[in-house]
Amino acid sequence: MLPDNCTMVVFGGTGDLTHRKLVPALYNLHLTGQLPEDFSLVGVGRKLKENAQYRAELAVSVEEFSAATYDDQSWAAFAAKLYYYAGDLHDAESYPGLKDALKTCACDSGNDGNYLFYLAVAPQLFASIAGNLARFGLSHAEKGWRRIMIEKPFGYDLTSAGELNKALVAAFDEKNIYRIDHYLGKEMLQNILVIRFANEVFEPLWNNHFIDNIQFNALESEGINQRGRYYDRAGALRDMVQSHLLQMLAITAMEPPAENCSPSIRLEKLRLLSSVQLWPEGEPADNLAFGQYKGFRDEKDIATDSQTETFAAVRLAVNNARWQGVPFYLRSGKKLQDKQAKIVVQFKKPPGLFARERLANPSGGRGELLNLLTLKVQPSEGVVFQFNIKKPGTTAEIAPVEMDFCQPCAFMINSPEAYERLLADAMIGDTTRFTSWDEVEKAWSLTD
Amino acid sequence: MLPDNCTMVVFGGTGDLTHRKLVPALYNLHLTGQLPEDFSLVGVGRKLKENAQYRAELAVSVEEFSAATYDDQSWAAFAAKLYYYAGDLHDAESYPGLKDALKTCACDSGNDGNYLFYLAVAPQLFASIAGNLARFGLSHAEKGWRRIMIEKPFGYDLTSAGELNKALVAAFDEKNIYRIDHYLGKEMLQNILVIRFANEVFEPLWNNHFIDNIQFNALESEGINQRGRYYDRAGALRDMVQSHLLQMLAITAMEPPAENCSPSIRLEKLRLLSSVQLWPEGEPADNLAFGQYKGFRDEKDIATDSQTETFAAVRLAVNNARWQGVPFYLRSGKKLQDKQAKIVVQFKKPPGLFARERLANPSGGRGELLNLLTLKVQPSEGVVFQFNIKKPGTTAEIAPVEMDFCQPCAFMINSPEAYERLLADAMIGDTTRFTSWDEVEKAWSLTD
Repeated sequence: MLPDNCTMVVFGGTGDLTHRKLVPALYNLHLTGQLPEDFSLVGVGRKLKENAQYRAELAVSVEEFSAATYDDQSWAAFAAKLYYYAGDLHDAESYPGLKDALKTCACDSGNDGNYLFYLAVAPQLFASIAGNLARFGLSHAEKGWRRIMIEKPFGYDLTSAGELNKALVAAFDEKNIYRIDHYLGKEMLQNILVIRFANEVFEPLWNNHFIDNIQFNALESEGINQRGRYYDRAGALRDMVQSHLLQMLAITAMEPPAENCSPSIRLEKLRLLSSVQLWPEGEPADNLAFGQYKGFRDEKDIATDSQTETFAAVRLAVNNARWQGVPFYLRSGKKLQDKQAKIVVQFKKPPGLFARERLANPSGGRGELLNLLTLKVQPSEGVVFQFNIKKPGTTAEIAPVEMDFCQPCAFMINSPEAYERLLADAMIGDTTRFTSWDEVEKAWSLTD
Repeated sequence: MLPDNCTMVVFGGTGDLTHRKLVPALYNLHLTGQLPEDFSLVGVGRKLKENAQYRAELAVSVEEFSAATYDDQSWAAFAAKLYYYAGDLHDAESYPGLKDALKTCACDSGNDGNYLFYLAVAPQLFASIAGNLARFGLSHAEKGWRRIMIEKPFGYDLTSAGELNKALVAAFDEKNIYRIDHYLGKEMLQNILVIRFANEVFEPLWNNHFIDNIQFNALESEGINQRGRYYDRAGALRDMVQSHLLQMLAITAMEPPAENCSPSIRLEKLRLLSSVQLWPEGEPADNLAFGQYKGFRDEKDIATDSQTETFAAVRLAVNNARWQGVPFYLRSGKKLQDKQAKIVVQFKKPPGLFARERLANPSGGRGELLNLLTLKVQPSEGVVFQFNIKKPGTTAEIAPVEMDFCQPCAFMINSPEAYERLLADAMIGDTTRFTSWDEVEKAWSLTD
């Protein structure tokens, strides 16, 4: 489906996210014919700058960060859709000017009155920008749609998230608010729905009769880079667990949605999140673990006595008939040896004939007869299934082996960057891969 | 477990099977330290021949047919265990001489009174050899064991198989009769038991709730070679379906055995075979198909008006609670384009969310959402699982992909030839990988 004609207004139009992610993603959508016929982007920034200069600066970034090959000719066609507007977002008086600029500039010709406002700015500005858009009549219109996309973090805790949401829904209808959790745009997360429900073999096993536990890992080798000011206040639990990991859990463990559409899927995720709690047995310390990497306090913008966690591990329970008794392990951290996000479904030991058998694995170790289904989310994408076979040439020894499906190997294309999918979705009006306020609220009340 | 010390007496000691399979397999067992400490082989043939000549002839064959690398030094140590006895098997008067030779020859020193008689001769001779072994006191002894191993075909139909069995059990106890179905020695067939029962994920799906049908294929690209005389009388149904394919079906579909030992497994195979019948719906012609390859009637020893089938396909039902309504397709043939033996478990279409979805597969075709579990038996060995995923970069298209486990790739060793396993089993006294009379009887009554 081709997206609606529209104009995308990016607050923070000269920032990192715009340069590294948004414009490269849009350029790729342009190359693969997935942009609407009439599309334009207006970058909003404080510095004075001509369109030509803005386009030249973005060209440099696209050449560096785009997954596709940059070429001058296609860039020229794409760059003609990019505009710049200089204005101070703190200043309400900038908005009438923006409104006029949008009306009068060339980009207004063919957008059918559709505007997508993208807030690539500090989270403290979310509420005031939404308020000003409403105040100057930009958030509602008789003709066309008005949508707003915001990056995480969505609040700092349940209270602040509630306040932010109040400001947003005062300006935009809930259905026009696109809360980004960019993990939801990742191929393998989109794939979970298909893997679970388009295969006869998985869903019958997807419950506490056959599954021993499920692990969700989002491990990073990098530190916090330039994000110290944000991160020291947030920490791993707020930054990763509250958002990405709980979303992964929700999609993996939810009941089958009635339909393959956003309201049905959001409803099931919400129902699942409503059943989540800290693992009820043992002390809290048994079910929650925090850590901080060495040198974190020396990073830029980090307090020298910071207690902020850069690693968090949580054991959760899902209190419904399907998952009673199955622990869910969520782990995330920075500056770790491993760099991977993955979901590991660990099945129970087989009963009966081989119940007392142990593995004779090639490295000489011995262990339980397990089955593991691993969904690799990033950096590599794929599915790995570990099962047990008779070791060749022996009569009775059992060894674990793996079947492997490597997604990029099979399809010979790189999966589209999450932002390409999410931007195209927002222009089409598909909210499946965005989080609803209800889900955010549940996730925060759990995290609190 | 190391096999018992023993002497193996091969009737047909100069024949093809001995040269191409038996002695190369024994040589490999020697190299890998799997022969008993005291082992000897006496080849029985009609022609006069010295031990030295016999050994020299076998050396040539081992060099050509052994899976392991032949080397002079290890061959010399192995060849010292090989002896030759010249005698006419039709002539009862040869047997006292054989008995004396076994008693007096060097090979009798350390075998603890254990003898394994291997009948690598035409099936018409099976009964008379067994009878003569009994008549001259070779089939029973106060000290040690006496076992007999016979190649297929075990009879031509239920009546002839019954007569042959009567002659055998008059000479040997049932537990000492090793009826070879060399498919049972193949790695992947031995593996079925482990795959089914040492993994939690397969057995819960292994029934008519989740499986649509199961296919057993034993396809060959070769013709009948030098076996015309036997084959024109037998045909594909007797040669392959009655033996190998029904055994594959029995192991794949049987209930879990109570113990991982021969009597338990044989019992379950027998119970399964007792439930097998031709698919009850439709005309017999819908459930049975025969073919003959072009040029078959020009082959050596084939009648010019032969009606013998070289291809057979059968649709069977298993009438028990687990398999009610699931068709089992058995196919075997010669001179076919494909050369493979494999088992394909086809799961049902997924219900619910994607029930009406069709595949958008890379070649442009469209089809059902299937899951296929393929156990590759020969020539390549391995496990392949076909499942469905979201095609990358699209929102909704579903494509089939494969996870692959290649057994020789993973273990870096060639699977032992079936004969190695079977000969070692017979010396140990493990009948798991041999067919019992009850099973043969059921298979014949079904084939008739």
